[in-house]
Amino acid sequence: MSTLFVRTLREDPADAEIPSHRLLVRAGYIRRAASGGYTWLPLGYRVYRNVERIIREEMDRMGAQEVHFPALLPREPYEASDRWTDYGDNLFRLKDRRGADHLLAPTHEEMFTLLVKDLYSSYKDLPLWLYQIQTKFRDEARPRAGLLRLREFVMKDSYSFDSSDTGLDASYAAHRAAYIAIFDRLGLDYVIVSAMSGAMGGSLSEEFLHPNEVGEDTFVRSAGGYAANVEAVRTPVPDPIPYDDAPSAHVEDTPDTPTIDTLVALANERFARTDRSWSAGDTLKNVLVMLAHPDGTRESLAIGLPGDREVDAKRLEAQVDPATVEPFTEADFTANPALVKGYIGPTALGEKSSSAIRYLVDPRVVVGTRWVTGANEPGRHVFDLVCGRDFTPDGTIEAAEIKAGDPAPDGSGPLEPARGIEIGHIFQLGRKYAEALDLRVLDENGKLVTVTMGSYGIGVSRAVAAIAESTHDAAGLCWPREVSPADVHIVATGKDPAVFEAADRLAGALVAEGMTVLYDDRRKVSPGIKFTDAELIGVPTIVTVGRGLVDGMIELRDRRSDTRSETPVAEAASTIQMSVRA
Amino acid sequence: MSTLFVRTLREDPADAEIPSHRLLVRAGYIRRAASGGYTWLPLGYRVYRNVERIIREEMDRMGAQEVHFPALLPREPYEASDRWTDYGDNLFRLKDRRGADHLLAPTHEEMFTLLVKDLYSSYKDLPLWLYQIQTKFRDEARPRAGLLRLREFVMKDSYSFDSSDTGLDASYAAHRAAYIAIFDRLGLDYVIVSAMSGAMGGSLSEEFLHPNEVGEDTFVRSAGGYAANVEAVRTPVPDPIPYDDAPSAHVEDTPDTPTIDTLVALANERFARTDRSWSAGDTLKNVLVMLAHPDGTRESLAIGLPGDREVDAKRLEAQVDPATVEPFTEADFTANPALVKGYIGPTALGEKSSSAIRYLVDPRVVVGTRWVTGANEPGRHVFDLVCGRDFTPDGTIEAAEIKAGDPAPDGSGPLEPARGIEIGHIFQLGRKYAEALDLRVLDENGKLVTVTMGSYGIGVSRAVAAIAESTHDAAGLCWPREVSPADVHIVATGKDPAVFEAADRLAGALVAEGMTVLYDDRRKVSPGIKFTDAELIGVPTIVTVGRGLVDGMIELRDRRSDTRSETPVAEAASTIQMSVRA
Repeated sequence: MSTLFVRTLREDPADAEIPSHRLLVRAGYIRRAASGGYTWLPLGYRVYRNVERIIREEMDRMGAQEVHFPALLPREPYEASDRWTDYGDNLFRLKDRRGADHLLAPTHEEMFTLLVKDLYSSYKDLPLWLYQIQTKFRDEARPRAGLLRLREFVMKDSYSFDSSDTGLDASYAAHRAAYIAIFDRLGLDYVIVSAMSGAMGGSLSEEFLHPNEVGEDTFVRSAGGYAANVEAVRTPVPDPIPYDDAPSAHVEDTPDTPTIDTLVALANERFARTDRSWSAGDTLKNVLVMLAHPDGTRESLAIGLPGDREVDAKRLEAQVDPATVEPFTEADFTANPALVKGYIGPTALGEKSSSAIRYLVDPRVVVGTRWVTGANEPGRHVFDLVCGRDFTPDGTIEAAEIKAGDPAPDGSGPLEPARGIEIGHIFQLGRKYAEALDLRVLDENGKLVTVTMGSYGIGVSRAVAAIAESTHDAAGLCWPREVSPADVHIVATGKDPAVFEAADRLAGALVAEGMTVLYDDRRKVSPGIKFTDAELIGVPTIVTVGRGLVDGMIELRDRRSDTRSETPVAEAASTIQMSVRA
Repeated sequence: MSTLFVRTLREDPADAEIPSHRLLVRAGYIRRAASGGYTWLPLGYRVYRNVERIIREEMDRMGAQEVHFPALLPREPYEASDRWTDYGDNLFRLKDRRGADHLLAPTHEEMFTLLVKDLYSSYKDLPLWLYQIQTKFRDEARPRAGLLRLREFVMKDSYSFDSSDTGLDASYAAHRAAYIAIFDRLGLDYVIVSAMSGAMGGSLSEEFLHPNEVGEDTFVRSAGGYAANVEAVRTPVPDPIPYDDAPSAHVEDTPDTPTIDTLVALANERFARTDRSWSAGDTLKNVLVMLAHPDGTRESLAIGLPGDREVDAKRLEAQVDPATVEPFTEADFTANPALVKGYIGPTALGEKSSSAIRYLVDPRVVVGTRWVTGANEPGRHVFDLVCGRDFTPDGTIEAAEIKAGDPAPDGSGPLEPARGIEIGHIFQLGRKYAEALDLRVLDENGKLVTVTMGSYGIGVSRAVAAIAESTHDAAGLCWPREVSPADVHIVATGKDPAVFEAADRLAGALVAEGMTVLYDDRRKVSPGIKFTDAELIGVPTIVTVGRGLVDGMIELRDRRSDTRSETPVAEAASTIQMSVRA
């Protein structure tokens, strides 16, 4: 500790909102270098490398082969897959001295596809599993939370190549099993949730989420075992309802009811039902947004959903990706006179309507459902407007929020929301990239078939933050043994030279046994500060050489449980070794 | 080999000019991914990681501490050190989504300086040695030669921080010793040469050059032990010559003598000397170039040197760095009527002359030397023009070529030129970066002193190429044991299942002993192809399990010496282990 490049801080950094960020900075593991870019200090880099090593060992064990691509790549392969455009502002683009377009790779599907095309040509070469551990770059709109959302970060990304769908299923299952082994060794709890694949394309897709309040991902789960990222939840579609005896739609004066609450209150007062009160769920709310497509075009979109639900921005974004969602402005309303703000109804929406705006509804809006909704006139609403009789949407969209208690799509019970940190993502890309870049192999019959791919990622730097989030306590970091920057933290206290001599000898003996030791040999630092630093730094075993030495004893302390025991100095090395190797 | 991601090639790649490039591609170690960007395939990445490991172990052993910075950095620190501009076209610059300027770091002096400033404040914290192993980016004008000159490459860069010059000397010496240990372990011959520090600033600077014909660096050495990069050679300055009895300068008609050769011929014909013939070394040649400064300004420069030497472009560039050298065009001549092309003489040059062009001469042009040189009139030259009497240059410049046989500046004998690959560079930066970024610490007397720094680099990816260059033979690569992708290459030949069973068992036994094995288990590949592949791939020990097995014998072969021995299959594992661990 007298020469280690570290300065522990007593104060939380001003910009740190979450525990891992606060503690990793305070304990001298990382230091901000740029927006969304952190420098690993010596302690931090040791933890990082331990995480990297575990991931590498498990990838090797499953039979994946390690390669390494450049991060700076030419535009052309990403042009062929449309991602040069689809990635939008998230892609760092640059020109070289000759003016040629380049990018900093956010992920490497295209390059792996081209590499395999370059070397392989037969189904006999497959399955093939390749991986790399590499720095990635994404121009995040909001880098935040220390290592959780960076613009430059390390990812283990792997890719599987198969000549058949059943092969892809097996490759996917092998990666899933390896990820389970990795996160188990990292000591990270996880939930495997169904996921959307975003800009990646593809079909079957699951995320490994570490359940944690600070996570950016919201997911839902049922007691019966269903779990999904909110973006991926499919709303159970109700059966159509017969509407033969439904009354005709009738427009009513509903002055001063621009919101759902005011509308429901007025309906209960002036148009009371006999069976029950009107509620927000009886109304059909129509929300307008503007989609910005990667090619620069803009498109209005109307979303119809029961009035007791809001649009969930993330679910909507996942549905319209690679387009992004922008607000529908006053100018947009002005430009489309068919829209009466606050009183927009389905009959003014749809591609064939007077507004010509595409109209997608929540899956619950099935044929036969009856709604109170806008009549496209100021101060008026229409009642008993029946879907499939009085209006026909252009389609459905999964954009409504999920609420606690909503039924799981697989019938496994009510859903509960939770938050998590995405630590892994596995998905079946299918043939999107192989088709775009023409990766084909000869099959058993000598016929060319397009290869089917899987893509599998683990955020290595993010995993460090997730481990810190899940293991810290009030006093500081508290590492699982396999990722700790050292096996043992020796604290020598007091001024007695005999103490430092004994601590020197112990440190030497432990290192000779192959253990890594962080040794607080500082002479002019008080025991209180040394203990505070040891707790903050979070090595799992803390050994104190101090006052007890006159009786031939030193103290062993378990950082997590805070259990302490005395051991004779002569037996210390072997006792410590047993506890470390346990 | 039946599942390894590799395809060996019989043909040299069209764009490969040097053996390491040819063989690394043909043996399936690397694959081109972009201009100046290569992908490491599994075999190549194993070698790369072995080199990285050796460097890391030796850096740790010397007491340097590993950190890791982002590669994508904001402009500001590089603005403070002027490198944002000085790096010119070699720097990859880009803007983020907010329009903020960023760069891909070519090297990290600024960031290390700021990090130490951030954490440390006292001389007691020093010396401090930090390093990282990290991807660097440089927009090279001519990426070439496979891994030798890339636009994206891995460097180990380290930095020392001291509060005194003697401290810097000690830090420099410690790095020099560590580099010697590293290159010895890598099995790389090297010459340590005096060097210029280029855009880095600073003073004492040495390069580790691996002597090799394919290298881009030219250096010179003497039998007496002097060695220097040509850019760094200092010409011994002769003593001034008395010129009291020198004749006056006299202009002569010298029609049709625009070149040194024609001038010397005419002088010998028309103005013959009595003591000896005129030679090119009696003439003073004046060469004009245009300097392009990083701020966009251009400046004419005249260089006067003995007519038997050319200007050496690299030496000139090193002297004028960060400016670059461009040709002096016809338009430039036209713009300065004082210059008579082919007949330019010293009296028309110099800041105070009619041309106002700065005039620097070779250090051999000392006071009292007498020259035949241009008379600034077409077809006329001046004889007996004496330096210090008839003209006074603005200064001297080390821009003339070094010739074989030139004396070493330290008197250690004649110089011989050689070529080398730069594999390491160590230099004393001094206070340039600490001053630019205000890195100061309190000294023993409580006074703020500016820190003095050293900077030390090893090209990790380039080292792989250098090792391949120095160890390959006609049959292929031939790795030193410590960097080889495997300890043993087992070749199973023929169709007999017993052969493959024995080879399987042997491979398993070797792996169980902790050895790495490349096992050619391909069933339908001929022995000839397998042996050719084994030679091309270059693992140091090749074990053949084949026909000899019926007699209970297998063959061990040393790849480098091609010595072969038979060993009983029962003893094979232990025999191989002894030879590998030897």
